[in-house]
Amino acid sequence: MRVLGVDPGLTRCGVGVVEGVAGRPLRMLGVGVVRTPADAELGDRLVAIERGIEAWLDEHRPEYVAVERVFSQHNVRTVMGTAQASAVAMLCAARRGLPVALHTPSEVKAAVTGNGRAEKDQVGAMVTRLLRLDAPPKPADAADALALAICHIWRAPAVNRLQQAHAAARASRIPVVRKVTR
Amino acid sequence: MRVLGVDPGLTRCGVGVVEGVAGRPLRMLGVGVVRTPADAELGDRLVAIERGIEAWLDEHRPEYVAVERVFSQHNVRTVMGTAQASAVAMLCAARRGLPVALHTPSEVKAAVTGNGRAEKDQVGAMVTRLLRLDAPPKPADAADALALAICHIWRAPAVNRLQQAHAAARASRIPVVRKVTR
Repeated sequence: MRVLGVDPGLTRCGVGVVEGVAGRPLRMLGVGVVRTPADAELGDRLVAIERGIEAWLDEHRPEYVAVERVFSQHNVRTVMGTAQASAVAMLCAARRGLPVALHTPSEVKAAVTGNGRAEKDQVGAMVTRLLRLDAPPKPADAADALALAICHIWRAPAVNRLQQAHAAARASRIPVVRKVTR
Repeated sequence: MRVLGVDPGLTRCGVGVVEGVAGRPLRMLGVGVVRTPADAELGDRLVAIERGIEAWLDEHRPEYVAVERVFSQHNVRTVMGTAQASAVAMLCAARRGLPVALHTPSEVKAAVTGNGRAEKDQVGAMVTRLLRLDAPPKPADAADALALAICHIWRAPAVNRLQQAHAAARASRIPVVRKVTR
């Protein structure tokens, strides 16, 4: 199972690809960050994120995309940008018929550290250990993207198979209703 | 000046195209709603919205896209979906090099009714009058999209010209920084 994890953000969008199955050693295929300049127009930043995510999908051909679920109780100033960046990541995946899974930050922390309230450092340390890396990936967004991918591999493989079948069936018949007058 | 107004939403995304210049009678070229089923996967809903917006851009070739600015103080349950739908609309516009303008609901209401706190009915009535329609467009999302387009035509034409020049200059050099380690 090959999973692209995405920690969405307008300024730094963490991305990481992990391959493996639950109960076996995992392998990291790539990790990085898609960055967009804070002074650019919002529309252009979204286009830059789309290009970045597309490049990662092209290069690594994941079978699943796991995106952090955005909550509105977070910092009000950044949550809108995070929601918009996550929309672009979900759009890129769904356009290819890839199943998209959303995991909350606490689900991810619980999956990789056993504690849903773990600190950033602890998540980075466990990602480093689980993927047998030499050092924790930097910045934290990159480590979080890998943690998302690991979390997805470990959570509910049966649910994944079901979701993948549904996604394939739906890919050819996404409904759009338009109404034009005049 | 031809403007596509977008009132973003996952279930109903209002779209309306208006042509004209400030100080002259305006003309509606089209109005409608892009709908997605509430029980579909979020990624697929975003793909359906992308297809819908693209179809409107293809058909009407607007020079500007005006999107309602989403605030997080709105209903917390719907604001995330609204932010994600607006991201798709902005992405579609920016990908074509079209300038994207964001207007707040009160700016739109003030532009078309003179009152930033006007009711939905009043906005619908003024849109009907300004565009010389037989009846207010339904649902309200469709009327709001037309109001956004009118608001954009009437607000700051000088700012538009500047923004359009910037967008054209930027379209060819959107920066994406990627970093891959392994």
